[in-house]
Amino acid sequence: MYRHVRELQFTAKPEKPDALFAMKFQEILGGQFGEMTVMMQYLWQGWSCRVPGKYKDMIMDIGTEEIGHVEMLTVMLARLLEGAPGETTEKAAATNPVLAAVLGGQNPQHAIVSGGNAMPTNSQGVPWNTGYIVASGNLLTDFRSNAAAEGQSRLQTSRIANMTDDRGVKDMLAFNLARDTYHQQQWLLAIQMLQEEGYTDIVENSNGDWENKAAAHVFYTSTPGSRAGDGLWATSNSLSTGSRSGSSRWSR
Amino acid sequence: MYRHVRELQFTAKPEKPDALFAMKFQEILGGQFGEMTVMMQYLWQGWSCRVPGKYKDMIMDIGTEEIGHVEMLTVMLARLLEGAPGETTEKAAATNPVLAAVLGGQNPQHAIVSGGNAMPTNSQGVPWNTGYIVASGNLLTDFRSNAAAEGQSRLQTSRIANMTDDRGVKDMLAFNLARDTYHQQQWLLAIQMLQEEGYTDIVENSNGDWENKAAAHVFYTSTPGSRAGDGLWATSNSLSTGSRSGSSRWSR
Amino acid sequence: MYRHVRELQFTAKPEKPDALFAMKFQEILGGQFGEMTVMMQYLWQGWSCRVPGKYKDMIMDIGTEEIGHVEMLTVMLARLLEGAPGETTEKAAATNPVLAAVLGGQNPQHAIVSGGNAMPTNSQGVPWNTGYIVASGNLLTDFRSNAAAEGQSRLQTSRIANMTDDRGVKDMLAFNLARDTYHQQQWLLAIQMLQEEGYTDIVENSNGDWENKAAAHVFYTSTPGSRAGDGLWATSNSLSTGSRSGSSRWSR
Amino acid sequence: MYRHVRELQFTAKPEKPDALFAMKFQEILGGQFGEMTVMMQYLWQGWSCRVPGKYKDMIMDIGTEEIGHVEMLTVMLARLLEGAPGETTEKAAATNPVLAAVLGGQNPQHAIVSGGNAMPTNSQGVPWNTGYIVASGNLLTDFRSNAAAEGQSRLQTSRIANMTDDRGVKDMLAFNLARDTYHQQQWLLAIQMLQEEGYTDIVENSNGDWENKAAAHVFYTSTPGSRAGDGLWATSNSLSTGSRSGSSRWSR
Amino acid sequence: MYRHVRELQFTAKPEKPDALFAMKFQEILGGQFGEMTVMMQYLWQGWSCRVPGKYKDMIMDIGTEEIGHVEMLTVMLARLLEGAPGETTEKAAATNPVLAAVLGGQNPQHAIVSGGNAMPTNSQGVPWNTGYIVASGNLLTDFRSNAAAEGQSRLQTSRIANMTDDRGVKDMLAFNLARDTYHQQQWLLAIQMLQEEGYTDIVENSNGDWENKAAAHVFYTSTPGSRAGDGLWATSNSLSTGSRSGSSRWSR
Amino acid sequence: MYRHVRELQFTAKPEKPDALFAMKFQEILGGQFGEMTVMMQYLWQGWSCRVPGKYKDMIMDIGTEEIGHVEMLTVMLARLLEGAPGETTEKAAATNPVLAAVLGGQNPQHAIVSGGNAMPTNSQGVPWNTGYIVASGNLLTDFRSNAAAEGQSRLQTSRIANMTDDRGVKDMLAFNLARDTYHQQQWLLAIQMLQEEGYTDIVENSNGDWENKAAAHVFYTSTPGSRAGDGLWATSNSLSTGSRSGSSRWSR
Repeated sequence: MYRHVRELQFTAKPEKPDALFAMKFQEILGGQFGEMTVMMQYLWQGWSCRVPGKYKDMIMDIGTEEIGHVEMLTVMLARLLEGAPGETTEKAAATNPVLAAVLGGQNPQHAIVSGGNAMPTNSQGVPWNTGYIVASGNLLTDFRSNAAAEGQSRLQTSRIANMTDDRGVKDMLAFNLARDTYHQQQWLLAIQMLQEEGYTDIVENSNGDWENKAAAHVFYTSTPGSRAGDGLWATSNSLSTGSRSGSSRWSR
Repeated sequence: MYRHVRELQFTAKPEKPDALFAMKFQEILGGQFGEMTVMMQYLWQGWSCRVPGKYKDMIMDIGTEEIGHVEMLTVMLARLLEGAPGETTEKAAATNPVLAAVLGGQNPQHAIVSGGNAMPTNSQGVPWNTGYIVASGNLLTDFRSNAAAEGQSRLQTSRIANMTDDRGVKDMLAFNLARDTYHQQQWLLAIQMLQEEGYTDIVENSNGDWENKAAAHVFYTSTPGSRAGDGLWATSNSLSTGSRSGSSRWSR
Repeated sequence: MYRHVRELQFTAKPEKPDALFAMKFQEILGGQFGEMTVMMQYLWQGWSCRVPGKYKDMIMDIGTEEIGHVEMLTVMLARLLEGAPGETTEKAAATNPVLAAVLGGQNPQHAIVSGGNAMPTNSQGVPWNTGYIVASGNLLTDFRSNAAAEGQSRLQTSRIANMTDDRGVKDMLAFNLARDTYHQQQWLLAIQMLQEEGYTDIVENSNGDWENKAAAHVFYTSTPGSRAGDGLWATSNSLSTGSRSGSSRWSR
Repeated sequence: MYRHVRELQFTAKPEKPDALFAMKFQEILGGQFGEMTVMMQYLWQGWSCRVPGKYKDMIMDIGTEEIGHVEMLTVMLARLLEGAPGETTEKAAATNPVLAAVLGGQNPQHAIVSGGNAMPTNSQGVPWNTGYIVASGNLLTDFRSNAAAEGQSRLQTSRIANMTDDRGVKDMLAFNLARDTYHQQQWLLAIQMLQEEGYTDIVENSNGDWENKAAAHVFYTSTPGSRAGDGLWATSNSLSTGSRSGSSRWSR
Repeated sequence: MYRHVRELQFTAKPEKPDALFAMKFQEILGGQFGEMTVMMQYLWQGWSCRVPGKYKDMIMDIGTEEIGHVEMLTVMLARLLEGAPGETTEKAAATNPVLAAVLGGQNPQHAIVSGGNAMPTNSQGVPWNTGYIVASGNLLTDFRSNAAAEGQSRLQTSRIANMTDDRGVKDMLAFNLARDTYHQQQWLLAIQMLQEEGYTDIVENSNGDWENKAAAHVFYTSTPGSRAGDGLWATSNSLSTGSRSGSSRWSR
Repeated sequence: MYRHVRELQFTAKPEKPDALFAMKFQEILGGQFGEMTVMMQYLWQGWSCRVPGKYKDMIMDIGTEEIGHVEMLTVMLARLLEGAPGETTEKAAATNPVLAAVLGGQNPQHAIVSGGNAMPTNSQGVPWNTGYIVASGNLLTDFRSNAAAEGQSRLQTSRIANMTDDRGVKDMLAFNLARDTYHQQQWLLAIQMLQEEGYTDIVENSNGDWENKAAAHVFYTSTPGSRAGDGLWATSNSLSTGSRSGSSRWSR
């Protein structure tokens, strides 16, 4: 069960409305790696985790925090859209290039569908869908997916921060970026811990003995002149011991 | 911000696993009118509601409750899938019609993708998407959508209850059905209250005076012999007063 | 079977082409609550209605009218796009902010894909899909969904009307708004009539006696300081009698 | 504008309900090349056709006929689902393999969502969407797409007919197949007529003179030992004269 | 198996970056009839073709060529986006209408998601999906779909060429247009060859004798005053002989 | 540019057709983490990689290998579907539970749409879409996503191998599993190499100095009694040095 607290996790107000930036901002709310994705991905993994204890609790704690991130971003979007020129006409834009840009570039659904509020879509208006998330029932595998998702999210948050000079917006993005950073660390540390505890993906490796050993150490190149053979992946031993040890081979 | 509490809102255990029923059960979790839809729809409306007070608080309270419903249903699904015959082979089914039905009818993603847990999809495996939800920024209009959604949800919950004899499952469905019933009442009462307080959709009715009055009272029939003229919609006054009063006309 | 008549239900021509407005206008044609949605929703409900008589005829009549609405809107869009600057180059825009806005803001598919005609998509270019519609086989429940859909449609039509000064476009929107108003009334009157005739959702209520009575009268709050307890939903008797009567209770 | 007539274009009743076949039958209603696709594709092309006369009238006539095909198929599906074992339990199936197959194989949404009626989805439950249709504003190009769509539809109708022995169902499929056959002929004859009238795609060929002539007559092979060079496409002159004449060349 | 060669099939560089044109250019890469569609459609048909020889080899050769077309277009897009004003601020646009247009009109995902590279989406940002492609296992029917797809692709390529003056871009589009032209010819010639070899769709015509002959020669009109009766489709014999011969009839 | 070679990368034939297993097998071809996903993800990343050398070559080599994996799986599916009982009637199943299971459980599109071939969809029939893939233009971040994708793919391949006893199918799965294992290693080694070469995500870290340091080291718990504080993520130093060093803090 969940409880709601009125305070936002982090409060920031934009200096002024900016409908054009609001359109772009949707990406980190309702995009492939937006807050809705990590919220639903972690909640789903937490609900599906059958072993009580620190891992399940940790997933649940972060998933619950992410609900609040979606909340924070919807509030920010509503503020960015306050007084957005929904009724802008060509007359208004005739002598004002910036207004013309807004006129051309804002997300029309912000005015028509949501009444000046956030939309549950990405920066191109595509509805969010659960094809973005994963919960496999295997902690190790899912934690890799989580660390990857936080990485993409950090990248997008950083890029979007370069698109505005608004101090309030940047403060919130700096907070979000920090949480992404921390959460990514967290998933990487949890992978380390799972491996130290011997979890790895043993259970799933019931088929480990059966996999095609010969094919597990070959790099195939298909491009004449490929320099891929210079990489660790073609020259080093494998990272893991056990069924996957041994040197790589190079094949054409 | 949100808090998590370990207890489920309602606890029920299935008498035994049932992978075939689990496949169907997905509809009220991840379908067009499943719990994910009302959860996201109410949360989104609550976050978008700019006027503090009883309406905003009520939407937030119900939205928060619905997160817990999604949680409850994912737990129930995991239990229904425990020991599900993921590795069932034809041999096992050769003399057992019921097992053959399960073999043919279970959702393969329950075994392959989620490892015996709920999927964020409907009973046909279609991913949930935000094209199912609405948050328009207008309370009156959204409450009608909410009452309609609860109606469809009640219908589906009732129908799905007819598909199982499992006492534990039925107990949970009886609880869910009751919450749908109550929530539908709630949205209808909230509409009544909004109207009594004069909210209606005044703000949005800025265009009320400008609509085509002549076209607002005509029933057009296009079918020879149509008996639609017998309905209140063609014979009575309009429900509302003001700009929409007047009798209906019948036109071909 | 259907017949086609060449005349449009309502004829209006835009004063001049407007590719930027055309992009927005797509929302009420191919969006979640656009004319395609009500057309397909009512046709589907009508085809699925097994009881002949005034209800089936009424649904069929409105559904058939809505085909003509989609037709009207596609014609209007083609006119808005006539002479649209598909070949606009930067040179043309270099000294003209409004042209620059159009250059940036128009829907490129209007020029590339449909050759200056309407697209079967919403204002953000998302294809229309049947995840937007509902036909449950239960008249009472579906009529609630229909009344809700007309409400959202009215809202969007009213908002979009604020985005243009074109007299021809506004005339058509005033007509559409009136039809939405009338149809919403119609569905509400049909609900009233169904209830007077004792239909309600009796058939589906075969599980009414079995629902969890205790859970059907409780408002759960999850937010410290919530003022939701001030609403009718927490203080009044239920709207309906029978299995759902009784007072609400307030719970934390 | 459209009119509705109560009679179906072709009437046929199934000998008995068959929920399993109903699931498959959905493909030719709501699939990529189902009746919804040709209905919406032709209506959209007709509405978008700016030149009045025989072509526009023909498209509109067929499009209107196709609305009736969707109607026919939804009625057939409702009949196939009458008395479908929505409440089938394992007990019933325990000694009956056929019932077990139905239990496993039927579309659960037929029971849960549509109350024993057709769904606007394909045989796998995927919602129909407008990404399936095309209306480019160019008659010649669209007629090729229409002839192709009828071809795929004939194929699927023929295949699905092999999946049932029900006389009533087969009668309707024989009718549908014939209409597909006729419509495909029609689109091919219309292409011939357009070409005889000199329409081809001249307008769109404004860029015909500018295309890369050298690249318009070369067959590139990428597979050692390819026998593709034996085909007319590599050995004959081009079909059309004018800018595209000349022999093909073979290149590696 | 596949091999990669570093050279592009055709090399062209844009004269200068153009983020606004890049947004539109996405349509012929990731749209309904973009290069991803023909690539996946032909590869899928080739992999599914069970009869070795010239047809299978030809499909495979073209499918393999199309992988290279997707490659070419992604490279062109990266060049069009080099130095794209991802960090453009309002200040920069305040006195520059063209920059304002770019600011409003560019695809934000090019900056936020792909880091200045192509996106696997259409010009409106909708993800590409396999609902666009077809591979039926029947060569004749699929070749009609292929000829139709090339036709739509030519049209879009031609239209998009009118939207830029950039010499490098136009050179590539002239190459692409020529390949579309050639490939369309090729599919049409292959249809002719299949028919000459007696393939037609014999296998699939196992139901040819059983179709409803009476319904296979009637044109139904539903529009008063329709001039569709003037067309070859209503007046000529059928194109094919055999089960589909005979004159058309005109019916209301 | 690409070249095609007729040989498959690995050849295996199923001992006998198995339509029911074919339906499940679709998951690792056209599902969220199927071969189509890694093929398109790596190709897209390779085409978007602007720095020539070992990294770009390696991505291209693996991407090209994956095209061949999709090819292998489509061939396997065609073999699994050979002689599949598309025309199975109830009569055949009446005394045969296994046939009844197949009758109920096979994917109807395998018979109706693709003519006994693979479909470009997942095990539930959902079309593959590019919302599954990522190519951010940042190697480090994308390699994490790639390692995660291989992990999920290994898991699904291992699980699906438990669902069949067919020697030929298992041989191919053992090969696929090995390639997943090797590729996962490869991405992990490439991450290590990028970090050793100082790449990390420096470029994207232009905002590293600006992130909210205070928020980058705090674990927030929201659950009373949470044991998440026992994890390395709450007790250890961060993994990376530089801007992200320092101990975690625990906060409620």
